[in-house]
Amino acid sequence: MKAGPRSYVSDKTGLPPGSLIHVGNVLVDETRISVINYNKDSFLEARIDSIDELEPYCQSDTITWVIVEGLSNVNVVESVGQMFGIHQLVLEDILNTHQRPKFEEYEDYLYIVLKAMVAEEGEFAVSYEQISLLVLEHVVFAFKEKRDKLFEPVVQRIRTSKGRFRSLGADFLAYSILDAIIDQNFVLIDSLDGAITLLEDELLTGDPGKTLLNRIQRLKREIVSVRRYVSPVRELINEMLRSESPLIDEKTHIYLKDVSDHAIRLVESIELHRDVISGLMDIYISTVSNKMNEVMKVLTIFASIFIPMTFLTGIYGMNFEHMPELKLSWTYPALWGVFLAIPAVLLTYFRRKKWL
Amino acid sequence: MKAGPRSYVSDKTGLPPGSLIHVGNVLVDETRISVINYNKDSFLEARIDSIDELEPYCQSDTITWVIVEGLSNVNVVESVGQMFGIHQLVLEDILNTHQRPKFEEYEDYLYIVLKAMVAEEGEFAVSYEQISLLVLEHVVFAFKEKRDKLFEPVVQRIRTSKGRFRSLGADFLAYSILDAIIDQNFVLIDSLDGAITLLEDELLTGDPGKTLLNRIQRLKREIVSVRRYVSPVRELINEMLRSESPLIDEKTHIYLKDVSDHAIRLVESIELHRDVISGLMDIYISTVSNKMNEVMKVLTIFASIFIPMTFLTGIYGMNFEHMPELKLSWTYPALWGVFLAIPAVLLTYFRRKKWL
Amino acid sequence: MKAGPRSYVSDKTGLPPGSLIHVGNVLVDETRISVINYNKDSFLEARIDSIDELEPYCQSDTITWVIVEGLSNVNVVESVGQMFGIHQLVLEDILNTHQRPKFEEYEDYLYIVLKAMVAEEGEFAVSYEQISLLVLEHVVFAFKEKRDKLFEPVVQRIRTSKGRFRSLGADFLAYSILDAIIDQNFVLIDSLDGAITLLEDELLTGDPGKTLLNRIQRLKREIVSVRRYVSPVRELINEMLRSESPLIDEKTHIYLKDVSDHAIRLVESIELHRDVISGLMDIYISTVSNKMNEVMKVLTIFASIFIPMTFLTGIYGMNFEHMPELKLSWTYPALWGVFLAIPAVLLTYFRRKKWL
Amino acid sequence: MKAGPRSYVSDKTGLPPGSLIHVGNVLVDETRISVINYNKDSFLEARIDSIDELEPYCQSDTITWVIVEGLSNVNVVESVGQMFGIHQLVLEDILNTHQRPKFEEYEDYLYIVLKAMVAEEGEFAVSYEQISLLVLEHVVFAFKEKRDKLFEPVVQRIRTSKGRFRSLGADFLAYSILDAIIDQNFVLIDSLDGAITLLEDELLTGDPGKTLLNRIQRLKREIVSVRRYVSPVRELINEMLRSESPLIDEKTHIYLKDVSDHAIRLVESIELHRDVISGLMDIYISTVSNKMNEVMKVLTIFASIFIPMTFLTGIYGMNFEHMPELKLSWTYPALWGVFLAIPAVLLTYFRRKKWL
Amino acid sequence: MKAGPRSYVSDKTGLPPGSLIHVGNVLVDETRISVINYNKDSFLEARIDSIDELEPYCQSDTITWVIVEGLSNVNVVESVGQMFGIHQLVLEDILNTHQRPKFEEYEDYLYIVLKAMVAEEGEFAVSYEQISLLVLEHVVFAFKEKRDKLFEPVVQRIRTSKGRFRSLGADFLAYSILDAIIDQNFVLIDSLDGAITLLEDELLTGDPGKTLLNRIQRLKREIVSVRRYVSPVRELINEMLRSESPLIDEKTHIYLKDVSDHAIRLVESIELHRDVISGLMDIYISTVSNKMNEVMKVLTIFASIFIPMTFLTGIYGMNFEHMPELKLSWTYPALWGVFLAIPAVLLTYFRRKKWL
Repeated sequence: MKAGPRSYVSDKTGLPPGSLIHVGNVLVDETRISVINYNKDSFLEARIDSIDELEPYCQSDTITWVIVEGLSNVNVVESVGQMFGIHQLVLEDILNTHQRPKFEEYEDYLYIVLKAMVAEEGEFAVSYEQISLLVLEHVVFAFKEKRDKLFEPVVQRIRTSKGRFRSLGADFLAYSILDAIIDQNFVLIDSLDGAITLLEDELLTGDPGKTLLNRIQRLKREIVSVRRYVSPVRELINEMLRSESPLIDEKTHIYLKDVSDHAIRLVESIELHRDVISGLMDIYISTVSNKMNEVMKVLTIFASIFIPMTFLTGIYGMNFEHMPELKLSWTYPALWGVFLAIPAVLLTYFRRKKWL
Repeated sequence: MKAGPRSYVSDKTGLPPGSLIHVGNVLVDETRISVINYNKDSFLEARIDSIDELEPYCQSDTITWVIVEGLSNVNVVESVGQMFGIHQLVLEDILNTHQRPKFEEYEDYLYIVLKAMVAEEGEFAVSYEQISLLVLEHVVFAFKEKRDKLFEPVVQRIRTSKGRFRSLGADFLAYSILDAIIDQNFVLIDSLDGAITLLEDELLTGDPGKTLLNRIQRLKREIVSVRRYVSPVRELINEMLRSESPLIDEKTHIYLKDVSDHAIRLVESIELHRDVISGLMDIYISTVSNKMNEVMKVLTIFASIFIPMTFLTGIYGMNFEHMPELKLSWTYPALWGVFLAIPAVLLTYFRRKKWL
Repeated sequence: MKAGPRSYVSDKTGLPPGSLIHVGNVLVDETRISVINYNKDSFLEARIDSIDELEPYCQSDTITWVIVEGLSNVNVVESVGQMFGIHQLVLEDILNTHQRPKFEEYEDYLYIVLKAMVAEEGEFAVSYEQISLLVLEHVVFAFKEKRDKLFEPVVQRIRTSKGRFRSLGADFLAYSILDAIIDQNFVLIDSLDGAITLLEDELLTGDPGKTLLNRIQRLKREIVSVRRYVSPVRELINEMLRSESPLIDEKTHIYLKDVSDHAIRLVESIELHRDVISGLMDIYISTVSNKMNEVMKVLTIFASIFIPMTFLTGIYGMNFEHMPELKLSWTYPALWGVFLAIPAVLLTYFRRKKWL
Repeated sequence: MKAGPRSYVSDKTGLPPGSLIHVGNVLVDETRISVINYNKDSFLEARIDSIDELEPYCQSDTITWVIVEGLSNVNVVESVGQMFGIHQLVLEDILNTHQRPKFEEYEDYLYIVLKAMVAEEGEFAVSYEQISLLVLEHVVFAFKEKRDKLFEPVVQRIRTSKGRFRSLGADFLAYSILDAIIDQNFVLIDSLDGAITLLEDELLTGDPGKTLLNRIQRLKREIVSVRRYVSPVRELINEMLRSESPLIDEKTHIYLKDVSDHAIRLVESIELHRDVISGLMDIYISTVSNKMNEVMKVLTIFASIFIPMTFLTGIYGMNFEHMPELKLSWTYPALWGVFLAIPAVLLTYFRRKKWL
Repeated sequence: MKAGPRSYVSDKTGLPPGSLIHVGNVLVDETRISVINYNKDSFLEARIDSIDELEPYCQSDTITWVIVEGLSNVNVVESVGQMFGIHQLVLEDILNTHQRPKFEEYEDYLYIVLKAMVAEEGEFAVSYEQISLLVLEHVVFAFKEKRDKLFEPVVQRIRTSKGRFRSLGADFLAYSILDAIIDQNFVLIDSLDGAITLLEDELLTGDPGKTLLNRIQRLKREIVSVRRYVSPVRELINEMLRSESPLIDEKTHIYLKDVSDHAIRLVESIELHRDVISGLMDIYISTVSNKMNEVMKVLTIFASIFIPMTFLTGIYGMNFEHMPELKLSWTYPALWGVFLAIPAVLLTYFRRKKWL
């Protein structure tokens, strides 16, 4: 997972800017292209093999949503670029999966890129998927790295919508996709919450070992990394709101504001979790310190009780000729009395000091 | 309580945006609708069963305040939406109790949402209640999650006001509600203060255990969480002040500024308490360290006194044939002299080092 | 003192906004009203019993300065409000002694509120006094909580000024009062400096106990609290400078800028002291750590020297029949040689390790 | 390396501003001047000895790129200044290798200065090279401190470009150079990542010594220093975008934005690494603490087991005449039973406390 | 030195604003006034006794630079105020040596105040000198607290300048003075660097005592204090650049920008050093911790080796009658074998744990 958040990739260093190659890990081998074409009255789903087959769908009285899953096939992106006149740098950004979330406005289209994040099974770890959206007047392209069910709710909604959704434009489709991605993040936050609660419980009940510290640190890093991809989303949507592009209808603004609110809540929630994690670190360090204290106490109790008594046995183990006590018959039992009294006194003292 | 501040709820994930369901914990089962209708000359309190019964109250020469307690009955919110033309997203926000405090301005109405916070009995813990206000020209809706006495002072003030309050508009009513909610928070801060003082006293007198650390951490989290809901209130009110909506009278501005001042003082007070808590953490850690020091000192004092003396007894416990000291009658008492001198010397030394 | 910085008072919760009651601790029982009336040619000091007696002084060719000491008598504030048309909320703010420093501009008057701070005797502790100024065209009201000599230098200056001061307007009087309050704070900073130096010396010479830590923390809190009341003063004065009220003459601006400079210097100085205090905390913690080190060294030195030697005595205290060494006459003295050599060797070793 | 990030050079103190001398370490002795001259149809590479030889290349229908490697020869910079009318202060800045990245706009030319950073072999350490660009209408000067392959990709691209690159202006050349420098930094980040991973592994497997701490600190400093040179680059490019100089074509803006995105990603990545390093510090400190814990446990286990048993042997080593146990034949073996039982009991206890 | 950064002086408290007295330490007893008068063709240096003698020099075709060294003679400042119409508050600021760096623009003159800083011999400590500049159309006053060679380079440059410098106005002279002061600070930074390197070396080689901690703290404070006087300089120059006063020629702007760049570099360098110092603190604390670890290890090794062996000797020192081992002749040598084996085994174990 380390590679996810940290390496920013120098794979392309040395290449002239403007050359189209896929930068990042290949997450699916084959590229799959799905087409969803709808308007108020019709709805149509299809799978095509190359971008050339798109043409019949792209008409001005329907909205066409093209989902490209898998980026290893550079030709697909190249064809989209040629057919719809997309700038070379945008195509590069689609293929380079190390983008920050951002919004760019061009004359004929909008470019939105952000990350979908999914919590992986087992230990808390996040897998990132870069989603690029190209929003044209009647066509929306969505480029994904993986095949998953991320867009399923949106597709389902178009499928079942009688009129409202299907009568709205490409910008509303784009909003619905953004909303689905952001909502997915709330699931992530919940699973993050679960991971933290797990750590907390372990910290309080069990004995925290070195692994725990590493897990806290790893969790902290995942949070930092998630935050890095979530916090620019707010700015992204604000830029969409400020944009004067005719591609974004005034009526869509209120929906975008709603997404923006969700993004703010996400960031706040992440900040909160980061604070909680810092608190865990404090508890961990304090726990280690407390354990040392306990070890010291055991040592001190043993040593303080037995060292003086051993000294006493030492005295009467000496070989002086003139030690009258040794000859008396009551001294040995009396010494046993002392041997019982010393621990009793010291244990009482330690109990008062709350060491026991 | 953990659920309060942290979980941001993914309950709705997968649902299309725009569907009305209650998101959050159900705090009261039944929804209760109270109506207060007043103008300069009349005052009327009633309880109604459905929003349909509202119609006779809504007239342009009176102010009508509708208090909806309990959000589990989605129909109520839906009816309000239909009867008064409220946007679908606003209705959703009213029902989703994970909102950040915010102010939204629409053509015919204003939407304000914020949190009322009450300190729970016993250990310091906060229970949150989301309050949504819809401010129309002659009607104010207040949606609450719980049935409590939060609005009692405002109702009382309308009831007893002879002229001034009742002759002012819906915006002044909204201000009075905001003021009541913010003032409630000062009570919270006082109870927070009490909780901190309690911790402080325990830290200084008793012996701080692991529980104390956890309680400090929990208190810290509560503060962070309270701050999250208080600090946007200032911005909320500033937006109301900047708003050019005809629904907010110029004369109400000075009152809103007053509320804004209170919100700033609240935030500052919370910051201050956060600093105090951090200081408590420092004292806690230092106390643990001091206790370890004390344990070490006891060990060192015992060991340094008895180990050398035990060595001496060891010497005269040896079985060498040629140990002339053993035969002399004054050596054993002399050694006792040494046994008294060693502790005396060392204890003096330790006292000088201020270990005792 | 805790009450000073922390409690933000919920005394008024439940009361309708707009009711006049004194909120805060009563610092003097009786309210005293002094009047100073001057212009270029005349100077007059008087004491009056009620605001009604003010009328003869308020003329357009003189400046009248009314000093109200003690806020428990609500009637005085109420009368001022009625006679000079002061807004209800301003009157409330005057009586509520938990205000942040702020400047408010009204049509006929300006309202300024800030804190005068005095270092108390003995341990460093600050007592706060809220000063409210109402600046009208020819009258300045100054409301204070206590009777003290805070305004003495200003009064003295008016008394002795031949022409310059007395020929300037109410705004210059207001500036002079602000200047006196801010200058007072420099005295506070000096006494803060003294308190820190005291702590520093104790930390370096004596042995820091738990009390010291508490005193450092208390000092830190006082600083945070002082900063809270000083840092908004700059903004207050900037707002006065930005204000376009005819009550503030252009010529007074340069004087206000000077006060603003002083306020900045105060804040910077407080920040600096906060850093120094944090440094003290670091030194304290490090000192505790060093002391533990020292304790451990003493223990280790004693134990490492005597434990091996005690082992040796143990050997020759065994009762084996075949221990030829025991019979030789030189072995016992030789062992004494070893008993002298072992400490010599180990002490040299420890000295090289710089433990001694 | 210390010199790199820290010393800001007071070499010139005392000299009047405006005198041309080289400030910084001399990285190459000899200054080498390369010229690349191209337009759509032609491409030409040459090496010249002095700036005077430049004249034939500088024509308005070609772009001329002059690369000056090595700054010790002040005459070269002086000649450029005279021939192209460059301001004295710009010439000084070119020669003083302690510049912050910045962009300055003059009437006839643009001045850009930034740092190229290369990770050195072995331990992570960065070597800095200052690059100054002078962008005139048809000529671009690039001043470098060293001879390296930094510009190779750009030269290669011009060489092989059939039409597109070569038909664009001097601003596109400047962009390509900036892009090459920024891309180089990604390599640096990757090697930084490697260095951190190495430290991490050592921290987790081996035993961290004092060297490790020093290496962590050194790495942290390198990161701070790298950040100092990377973070102003974003501002630099924003200023280029805001500039209204006719020397920057509108069409180049989109490319500059791309470089700006890269710079942001770089800074974010550096921040992330800084966080990781802080986490390493925490792990290191915690590891030291854990090791101390372990040492204490060993001591405590040994002492708690053997000290009580030694006490028992002491008892039966005493020389009292009336010790009946000593005469019984089963007592000695029974005592051995005790000697086996004590460790068994204590070890079980310690195992339960998870000390073993 | 403490007095330098911390005490902000309440010396003037109680005095009416506007009274001229010298506030600060008197650094030279006698005030010395030097005059430098120049234009393109002439150059003249003189020393005068009172400001009255200035008149012949102040002509509109020459630039006159008046250097006042020593502020204890208040009359000089007063005379300047009267002769050139300087505002009373400016005169006060010149005499009060606790000013923050600032720029003030008046109708006929500019007022600039900042600090020159010099590293003192021996331990790193900074001595501050306040420099006030009054820039009039043809006259520049420079008020200094001390007599030193700070302005020597500027004077030298005027003396030797053939035409360029001398033909420029008073604003260029002011710039040159600022430049000289800022450049002086780079020397300070270098000596700061030296002090840090010294501390670093001591920390790594020797054994850090309590003094070291104090020295680190003192260095940190000096840095904070230096930063306080350097960081406003940038703003000061930006205000000069924004100023529309005819006293600052457009052509001087580029020079001021250069000074501004230097100031930014200074601040960045100081920030960097502060980070380094914080790192030193971390290393110090970690070193103390490591030393404690080492002490504990020595104790543990000694105790774990000898305590079990002493127990063995204890066994055979017991006086049981039935101890058959004691009678066998090989048991004693065999025990010696055990006594050699135990340390061997334990030392191997400790070596494996890397304690040795």
